[in-house]
Amino acid sequence: MSDPLRLGIAGLGTVGAGVVKIVRQKATLLAERAGRPVVVSAVSARTRDKDRGVPLSSYAWEDDPVALATRDDVDVFVELMGGSDGPAKAAVEAALAAGKDVVTANKAMLAHHGQALAELAEANGAVLRFEAAVAGGIPVIKALTESLAGNDIQRVVGVMNGTCNYILTRMEDGGLTYEAAFAEADALGYLEADPTLDVGGIDAGHKLSLLAAIAFGTQVDFDAVELEGIGKVTIDDIRQAADMGFRIKLLGVSRMTGRGLEQSMAPCLVPAASPLGQLAGGTNMVVIEGDQVGQIVMRGAGAGEGPTASAVMGDVMDIARGLRVSTFGRPAGTLAGATPAKATAAAPYYLRMALVDRPGALAKAAQALGEAGVSIHRMRQYDHVDDAAPVLIVTHKTTRPSLDQALAAMMATGVVTHEPVALRIEEV
Amino acid sequence: MSDPLRLGIAGLGTVGAGVVKIVRQKATLLAERAGRPVVVSAVSARTRDKDRGVPLSSYAWEDDPVALATRDDVDVFVELMGGSDGPAKAAVEAALAAGKDVVTANKAMLAHHGQALAELAEANGAVLRFEAAVAGGIPVIKALTESLAGNDIQRVVGVMNGTCNYILTRMEDGGLTYEAAFAEADALGYLEADPTLDVGGIDAGHKLSLLAAIAFGTQVDFDAVELEGIGKVTIDDIRQAADMGFRIKLLGVSRMTGRGLEQSMAPCLVPAASPLGQLAGGTNMVVIEGDQVGQIVMRGAGAGEGPTASAVMGDVMDIARGLRVSTFGRPAGTLAGATPAKATAAAPYYLRMALVDRPGALAKAAQALGEAGVSIHRMRQYDHVDDAAPVLIVTHKTTRPSLDQALAAMMATGVVTHEPVALRIEEV
Repeated sequence: MSDPLRLGIAGLGTVGAGVVKIVRQKATLLAERAGRPVVVSAVSARTRDKDRGVPLSSYAWEDDPVALATRDDVDVFVELMGGSDGPAKAAVEAALAAGKDVVTANKAMLAHHGQALAELAEANGAVLRFEAAVAGGIPVIKALTESLAGNDIQRVVGVMNGTCNYILTRMEDGGLTYEAAFAEADALGYLEADPTLDVGGIDAGHKLSLLAAIAFGTQVDFDAVELEGIGKVTIDDIRQAADMGFRIKLLGVSRMTGRGLEQSMAPCLVPAASPLGQLAGGTNMVVIEGDQVGQIVMRGAGAGEGPTASAVMGDVMDIARGLRVSTFGRPAGTLAGATPAKATAAAPYYLRMALVDRPGALAKAAQALGEAGVSIHRMRQYDHVDDAAPVLIVTHKTTRPSLDQALAAMMATGVVTHEPVALRIEEV
Repeated sequence: MSDPLRLGIAGLGTVGAGVVKIVRQKATLLAERAGRPVVVSAVSARTRDKDRGVPLSSYAWEDDPVALATRDDVDVFVELMGGSDGPAKAAVEAALAAGKDVVTANKAMLAHHGQALAELAEANGAVLRFEAAVAGGIPVIKALTESLAGNDIQRVVGVMNGTCNYILTRMEDGGLTYEAAFAEADALGYLEADPTLDVGGIDAGHKLSLLAAIAFGTQVDFDAVELEGIGKVTIDDIRQAADMGFRIKLLGVSRMTGRGLEQSMAPCLVPAASPLGQLAGGTNMVVIEGDQVGQIVMRGAGAGEGPTASAVMGDVMDIARGLRVSTFGRPAGTLAGATPAKATAAAPYYLRMALVDRPGALAKAAQALGEAGVSIHRMRQYDHVDDAAPVLIVTHKTTRPSLDQALAAMMATGVVTHEPVALRIEEV
């Protein structure tokens, strides 16, 4: 049996402690599967004296993650500290510069510095892997990078933030307001320390930008992700969408178009009967479409100790077995600087508006749509509420600029009481 | 850039021709992703003069696949001929003996000879890969072998024969008899030349035996798979199951129990609202449960040129990138000879019977169940049809031997007109 693979683990929160537990408890299984033992040499965290539910005294301790990353007895630096910059980035850079392989769950760091880190890894003959950074335990990075390497990828779609999906599910099945569902998720400990990362779509946007880089062979470009959080989704939208056969999801969509690379993370409607529409609670789902394979759907836990540690160990085991694939599936120098698409592809839209109680109001609203080239697929007007008539419209496929033009014209006529809500319908 | 990886492809049906097309049409993409060109050196098939929709004249031709497998200009032998023995096996053995890597889609060959072939590969330092053999384009082999290598696998469940799922779906949504749905699948070309392979559960059983070997570290043991086809499933069962919130699927289930390795491929009831219950038509789905990752669900096309060729190319690209994992995820010598479990684990069962029109008939049937320790969870009696009363029972969890004892006792009382139908309910 070959030499052991020696890990240095920085960050001993639930995931870091989970990785240590797996290495300790499954030593024989891991050695048989990898053909060599996998061991921990050293660990690092902010505070040393804390019960993490797993014995750590047999490992060397480093206060400084950079020192850990460059130790002679560390082959793989496992970064589980988090944070896009600061100590995590410094330690990953130090490890790669020293030619050590890196496994990380840090989506923010890769979304912001993925290209530079991939180049650094390559320059030093090191491998940088990050299965745990996207969709927790679902092996989507591996599927996209390796299993589907014979495909031109056409679209990547997914629900990649379990907290947002939990909130939207509770609004629908519990009849809760956004605020009440948010408070419930908070009480359950589902929210990040800065909840904007979740409900603002930023965390999910980070993940999407990494998938897009692999899928389309482009440099990670998180800044080009069109981001919209779930804060404006109301229970009315959820009910009306359901009434028309849809569910609302915080949906990541990326595709390469003639207009450039589309990356959007925004509330969208999906058919209620589709796999994405059926996804309830804190689960994640990623749908990949390739020209050869057709549609692949993958579903699983997007967070938590076990699922995230499972993904980290998958990467560790690949390194133990000698797999050396480029960070984003091809040499960093061949990743193109993609042109961001100015707007998302043509799609049907769901519109909710409140018309003033005045003869001809509906005609004027419809006229505004027609004049901007937006045609109506389905329309429903409901009973007046507070002197305004709720109207739902599902349009035929249109572009966002045409729609925005129509909505601006509609506002200008004064027949709608507020700015209409417009949500894209993604066909899946 | 490194030396090209040179393929020799034996079998030029739709999948073989599909692989050739991908290699030709995506040469640049593949080379960028693999870090080296992937090329075809030579091909082989039963008949040479046939239009396969792709130019083949630039490749060397071999009538004999064994000759192809051992050519000096072939690094990877791609076996797409099929058949558990005969030329496919001879050629794969020749390739492995010559130290050449092998990629195959041949589930029958591996189900019968997997252990010997894995040993042969290992003895010659060759790699044997077979993603395309199970669930078409779904990357389930890779997920199980690599991504989930840090997990103890607890259960593998799946719908792995699209033809059977098509037939069962059409019986339900089209109200067709089994015979009519079978004829429809036949007319669409969905059936194997020997349809027993499909509807008898053999093809799906082959696949399950391969997944079980990886999941539980055991030698492939297809002979121990409890096989039951879908031929006895009636439209009544489908309707009554639906009435109680279930759908009937040809379901593969494998788990390691205290009683040994369970492998069963049989019609089972699953909750209609579960991902497996929602799976309609010719699609495949595999559910993997690990102690760390929880439940992972993967869904996609289980057959067809593009999906199968995609899986073959995933394996080819892995070899091009230098990945060398043992055939079943660990050295062949460490695979245990598993004891087959004598029966499947305790589970609830669905029973359908017809009671004779006689006072006390239901009491006697219930007594037979009770005396064998089988307790009733839900029961429905319907109006008499032809002097017999259809009765549906969902039991609490019980073992198959207890149930068989109860059913035998019930038959002996003469209160049922025919042998009752008993289908396991799998909780997913």
